[in-house]
Amino acid sequence: MVIIGAGFAGLAAARAVAGKPIEVVIVDQHNFHTFQPLLYQVATAGLEPADVAYPVRTIFGRYPNIIFRHGRVTGVDLEAREVALSDGSHLAYDQLVIASGATAGYFGIRGASANARPLYTLADARRLRNQVLGCLEAADARPEDYDDGAPTFVVVGGGPTGVETAGALVELLDVAMRRDKLRIDPERTRVVLLDAGDSLLTGFKPNARRYAEQILRSRRVDVRLSAPVSEVTDSGVRLSSGEWIKAAVVVWAGGVTVDGTLASSLGMKSCAGGRVEVGADLSLEGHPEVYVAGDAAGIPWSHGLKGLCPQLAPVAIQSGTHAGRQVLRRLAGEPAQPFAYHDKGIMATIGRRAAVAQLRKGPVLRGTFGWLAWLALHLVYLVGFRNRIVVIVNWAWRYLDWPSGPRLIVADVDVGLDAEGPP
Amino acid sequence: MVIIGAGFAGLAAARAVAGKPIEVVIVDQHNFHTFQPLLYQVATAGLEPADVAYPVRTIFGRYPNIIFRHGRVTGVDLEAREVALSDGSHLAYDQLVIASGATAGYFGIRGASANARPLYTLADARRLRNQVLGCLEAADARPEDYDDGAPTFVVVGGGPTGVETAGALVELLDVAMRRDKLRIDPERTRVVLLDAGDSLLTGFKPNARRYAEQILRSRRVDVRLSAPVSEVTDSGVRLSSGEWIKAAVVVWAGGVTVDGTLASSLGMKSCAGGRVEVGADLSLEGHPEVYVAGDAAGIPWSHGLKGLCPQLAPVAIQSGTHAGRQVLRRLAGEPAQPFAYHDKGIMATIGRRAAVAQLRKGPVLRGTFGWLAWLALHLVYLVGFRNRIVVIVNWAWRYLDWPSGPRLIVADVDVGLDAEGPP
Repeated sequence: MVIIGAGFAGLAAARAVAGKPIEVVIVDQHNFHTFQPLLYQVATAGLEPADVAYPVRTIFGRYPNIIFRHGRVTGVDLEAREVALSDGSHLAYDQLVIASGATAGYFGIRGASANARPLYTLADARRLRNQVLGCLEAADARPEDYDDGAPTFVVVGGGPTGVETAGALVELLDVAMRRDKLRIDPERTRVVLLDAGDSLLTGFKPNARRYAEQILRSRRVDVRLSAPVSEVTDSGVRLSSGEWIKAAVVVWAGGVTVDGTLASSLGMKSCAGGRVEVGADLSLEGHPEVYVAGDAAGIPWSHGLKGLCPQLAPVAIQSGTHAGRQVLRRLAGEPAQPFAYHDKGIMATIGRRAAVAQLRKGPVLRGTFGWLAWLALHLVYLVGFRNRIVVIVNWAWRYLDWPSGPRLIVADVDVGLDAEGPP
Repeated sequence: MVIIGAGFAGLAAARAVAGKPIEVVIVDQHNFHTFQPLLYQVATAGLEPADVAYPVRTIFGRYPNIIFRHGRVTGVDLEAREVALSDGSHLAYDQLVIASGATAGYFGIRGASANARPLYTLADARRLRNQVLGCLEAADARPEDYDDGAPTFVVVGGGPTGVETAGALVELLDVAMRRDKLRIDPERTRVVLLDAGDSLLTGFKPNARRYAEQILRSRRVDVRLSAPVSEVTDSGVRLSSGEWIKAAVVVWAGGVTVDGTLASSLGMKSCAGGRVEVGADLSLEGHPEVYVAGDAAGIPWSHGLKGLCPQLAPVAIQSGTHAGRQVLRRLAGEPAQPFAYHDKGIMATIGRRAAVAQLRKGPVLRGTFGWLAWLALHLVYLVGFRNRIVVIVNWAWRYLDWPSGPRLIVADVDVGLDAEGPP
């Protein structure tokens, strides 16, 4: 059995077959699993890369039936039952779980892919952090480079990632100016959060959406709704209305897409967002030995609901577990089962002591209660015990307002030192 | 007052003047201080970058008289009393401390600068780690790429950095094979430690040197003495004897040098290793307002000893403190004092429970006692309280043999995935 991808779905599939009488190879281009829901914290210097990443080999070290292969998948040959890798080698499989995830989706917006910073991989988060911190240092050193005397940060997309990033950015700016003595005018440094729709956090209940917007505004985030972006350049964004917003950094939280070549290379239909069309049991049509799970899969809702399940961590975990279990059932000669997503709720944090947690049953939790629920859930799901301790120490530190924090610019290339002007 | 460099010497100089009635700008191309003695741990995946780095702004956050400037110094104009930065701006000074450090010294050995990996900056350590882990993954995926079925790691230089790196590499290989199930033949994976001289750890007493050599050999490090290197290529090293050692990674721990242009740009003489010649009080001849401290300075021994003080952290700290104090004395109209280095001892660790600590008075500590002394000293000197806790957690983890650890390959470019063969 081969599992493509060590994200939430791939790990869940591997866990479902760990210790069972089946040889498993899990292949990923990174040698670590990334806890994506906290990437925005790495990007805003609240956590270190190692806090949200965990080596795949360590996770399955005690299961002799699971081995890891560091490699980039370039294609799947369904007839030959082989996965092709970029180094020219092939992995033969009898059962396959495709959990290769998605990438940032730019929806054809001009210049977005070249000039906006996505936030989907750990390398994305590191690069974004280096750019943000580098431009704060540049603004301190050469304020004359900035028209308004200070940089503007634009976040595109008002879903959970965008809301969390905007909230964390204002907290970072506060620390930068208040503690780090960066000479940037707080009145002139702006964080702008753009969304094409008429509210933030689509999918949440109206009172949760209003709460998020109100908290962000009270923390000086410039929330702009019904403001679709038409172009991103290296110096800012243009809205469909024609308005131009000069920006030092543009963060792309506008959604994800699945590389269309995956579905077509499998000879399968793609559905919304480039996702691969799968059957009720998550298998490919005509290939009961191949399952697709997580962000890459177009998973139909069960219970007669229309459309597809959202590309969220809980869907990825549940679908990966389901795929792993179906593999075991097939081996045991048992019939396949349909997948049904159990929605336990959704949550988003806005910053210190402010979050919304909307459980499937019960009220919407807000403020400190919402934040504590968010904190507890994320710590429970953080994959490794060591990471959990380090993250708790880091958060406790921040929360107790002690003056430290990993605000390091560690880049393979220099950031902002020789800049003639702001980006 | 301007301080160039936020290494041990620059920080010590800034600490000496912190809270005094003098305006200080500390300028560095990195926004963090690096605890260089532990870089080899980052390179061998024992610690994370943030564990050994600390933001300069945080260190001096509570001293209003010290500000940080993120910039790369390109020159000093002694007559105009200005420091030039790469972004075209200038910092005027009335007093200057030059603590700009050194870089890896290749001593003209062919190919060394292009093909060997130095270990002087945090970026060096990250790159070395990514190369080491990437080549272990490549050896697991494609053992046929390696002539001997496994990679060889060569460390050039048998001083403390080389000894510590070689010792940590064998521990990393042990973890990689035993826990991470990397399919690499332990009998064929080699760590080779080369030194041109006839013993390791020159400067230590004979029994300490013999102990280090014996422990490394017992841990399967191939220690080669009297083995000067004549060439480094992208596939190995050639010894002066003509012998060729094929290597996947060559670590350069062969010493440091000061960029010769520093001394000449100051119109000063350079002495051994390119260091700037300074007077007994560490000031430049004819420029009592300019001090040089740390690795960049050719600091004469006091007490009638010949030669220069070694380029070690304690010398950097003491000379930086001295330079800062002389600045204060000058302001107070007091005469300059000569610098005298107080040698409290030297130490090097070889791995778990094995180190040598040679105090100036008393016996040489070895084994577990040496290791505990080494551990305690390094923790005391780690600059930030938060880092200290994180490092203790990490080390406790490793020591108690729990299976985790930050063995992440986080590179801005992919490492080893598409390689046609070993480097």
